[in-house]
Amino acid sequence: MKAYKDMSRDELLTVKAALEKEYKTLEAKGLELNMARGKPGFSQLALSMPMLDVINSDSDMRTVLGNDTRNYGDLDGIGESRRLMADMMSVEKDNVIVCGNSSLNIMYDTIARSVTHGVKGGTPWSKLDKVTFLCPVPGYDRHFKITEFFGIEMINIPLYDDGPDMDMVEKYVNSDASVKGIWCVPKYSNPTGISYSDDVVRRFANLKPAAEDFRIYWDNAYCIHHLYEDTQDEILNILDECKKAGNPDMVYIFSSTSKISFPGSGISAIAASLENIEYIKSQMSIQTIGHDKINQLRHSRFFKNIDGLKAHMKKHAELLRPKFEAVLNTLENELEGLEIGNWIKPRGGYFISFNSLPGCAKKIVQMCKDLGVILTGAGATFPYGKDPEDSNIRIAPTFPTPEEMETAATVFVLCVKLVSVEKYLSE
Amino acid sequence: MKAYKDMSRDELLTVKAALEKEYKTLEAKGLELNMARGKPGFSQLALSMPMLDVINSDSDMRTVLGNDTRNYGDLDGIGESRRLMADMMSVEKDNVIVCGNSSLNIMYDTIARSVTHGVKGGTPWSKLDKVTFLCPVPGYDRHFKITEFFGIEMINIPLYDDGPDMDMVEKYVNSDASVKGIWCVPKYSNPTGISYSDDVVRRFANLKPAAEDFRIYWDNAYCIHHLYEDTQDEILNILDECKKAGNPDMVYIFSSTSKISFPGSGISAIAASLENIEYIKSQMSIQTIGHDKINQLRHSRFFKNIDGLKAHMKKHAELLRPKFEAVLNTLENELEGLEIGNWIKPRGGYFISFNSLPGCAKKIVQMCKDLGVILTGAGATFPYGKDPEDSNIRIAPTFPTPEEMETAATVFVLCVKLVSVEKYLSE
Repeated sequence: MKAYKDMSRDELLTVKAALEKEYKTLEAKGLELNMARGKPGFSQLALSMPMLDVINSDSDMRTVLGNDTRNYGDLDGIGESRRLMADMMSVEKDNVIVCGNSSLNIMYDTIARSVTHGVKGGTPWSKLDKVTFLCPVPGYDRHFKITEFFGIEMINIPLYDDGPDMDMVEKYVNSDASVKGIWCVPKYSNPTGISYSDDVVRRFANLKPAAEDFRIYWDNAYCIHHLYEDTQDEILNILDECKKAGNPDMVYIFSSTSKISFPGSGISAIAASLENIEYIKSQMSIQTIGHDKINQLRHSRFFKNIDGLKAHMKKHAELLRPKFEAVLNTLENELEGLEIGNWIKPRGGYFISFNSLPGCAKKIVQMCKDLGVILTGAGATFPYGKDPEDSNIRIAPTFPTPEEMETAATVFVLCVKLVSVEKYLSE
Repeated sequence: MKAYKDMSRDELLTVKAALEKEYKTLEAKGLELNMARGKPGFSQLALSMPMLDVINSDSDMRTVLGNDTRNYGDLDGIGESRRLMADMMSVEKDNVIVCGNSSLNIMYDTIARSVTHGVKGGTPWSKLDKVTFLCPVPGYDRHFKITEFFGIEMINIPLYDDGPDMDMVEKYVNSDASVKGIWCVPKYSNPTGISYSDDVVRRFANLKPAAEDFRIYWDNAYCIHHLYEDTQDEILNILDECKKAGNPDMVYIFSSTSKISFPGSGISAIAASLENIEYIKSQMSIQTIGHDKINQLRHSRFFKNIDGLKAHMKKHAELLRPKFEAVLNTLENELEGLEIGNWIKPRGGYFISFNSLPGCAKKIVQMCKDLGVILTGAGATFPYGKDPEDSNIRIAPTFPTPEEMETAATVFVLCVKLVSVEKYLSE
């Protein structure tokens, strides 16, 4: 295929006419497809339905230690769920608090407590003139919304194939005491799907923060969310690495079963050093008497252990692969050589990240919408919703069926082409 | 019975000798009973076990409106659970957000957001020199812990048989702009068991707060927690009364099913004016994508409607009455006429509140503990854990069996008598 940038005006006009015809055809279909959010598909939800039988009126509701899950108690979660989440997050059980249905909520609460009470006895951020977070971009919009909500300044850090630009991270963290945190999705990153290299993780662990209350907000949301059996990403254990580097308290790890069991009805967890955990628990005891332990028991008994979790994730992968491949194949078949966009083929996670020509993302998303295909808003993957290049688009292929996904991808590549042709023609 | 205060020194010594003998007997029993917290008893938890069968792998997981409860969405709760909680809280469905497993958590979050972001666009409390809450006493320790945690000053307001001292409430609220809230448990109050009179509720609704962001924190935790069929307290609808009085936004109402279904695995809700609800939702959308909708569905389908809830609470009442009566009868039989303490016979709720002679509560609680009976720490029912009179003790009769409760009550009255005799002897 000839790259658009190498085409003559006439060639571009010919391409455009053909694309417009295709547009009319797709418009006539009156599609209604949603690729906006990372929502599991119907068949994925069905995988976890047997979990709902595990706890019933005949069940022994006591934990292994004999605590009644139906009553108050166990602020840090029942033992078996702590074990399960610890194994999933590759940490020790004592380093984990199992919470409610949302790791986003834990992250919000962690930031909120830092604002009102400071980190482990430090100055409350509300008393500081300036608090800054580093934000590898493109990243997860809901992370950025939390820091924006609390008036925390955000600095974009480029995210490469092996992780954030660590030169830049080190420069900011080690010299600027207003830098209190960095948002990371270290494995199968949202949205690019990349995983941090060992070198990147080690450089994180060896940061020498100017601020004592600097923390790495390590959202390991996709820790066991592989797409393939043979090619799986693994990342270094950040908690261990931080300990080795003499920075045991520098990281908070978050995860949940939202995309394993049920979004909104899963269990979530925070992992950190024992000292951090004790501090968080003492603050958490003001907020709640405890989280939903029956749901913790339900998850623990259904998955049994880490092997149970992994076996379950294999079934998810089987359902997700065709959807990802529908998009990736269409991108490859339709865009290869045109030089109007690039993307990474993820080995896990929930997203495919697409970079269009600069200044085209908003138009592409709008055109898709006009054809009935809803994508995550352009810019959402950047702090304040502002993509300086207007080029990143997050594709969430999990919710539609593979057939719908193929149609949606067809619409998507058409819009990418048409907007790109128009860009070149207008130059 | 002769009042201790009218006894001669010799009479007191005789009484003391007899009590000490009884003490030895009870000490020898090596009791282990806990009346510290308002935990439902085993038989109460059993009442809700069939709820665990309502949702299983064969269930249609869609709400009445067709939304899949297994996936993300419905930040304000599924429609049927909003209807259920609205009916329980005597408000309209649109005035309700159904949240997670803990109304305490909603209260904490509501205060936390006021601290960081202000109330409905007002100045964040963290930017103010002084924020004050009024605290009817005795009251709920966990309320006071929240305000203490956020550095909010607390002022004790006497709680009478018909509600707080409204002259004092009006004086503070209407004149002092630092007064941003008051904690209320308006029905079957924790711990005294009293309910607010219509006059008190109307005076609340007609407050003219000096602070625009003053709110009444109306924790209607025991709204349908009657002990008797024939004598039930009813309170005026505060949301309606506030609206009538031209103060539609002045109240937040909280409740949960913690003591209806399962503590820690129930559902909770906040009710307020539509404007407040919209504002809260917009802030809540940063914190979470939504609460556990499967559990909301479970509750909605099990209880069906307000009649189902009421029928369920009748069963709870049947289990609780003997426990309350075991305490009340023992108090009456053993302490009547001695003039060493007073208490209110509650018609609902979870507690019996006992007032000893001044300066005796801590000693009584300690002596009970020495005999193996754990009570809520003396002072806990007051802000900062400081009961100025050292006289209030909260008795939580729900967790032990009626037989255990009788034993515990026997221990309690013995300790009350012994500490009181010692007080008179030392004077």
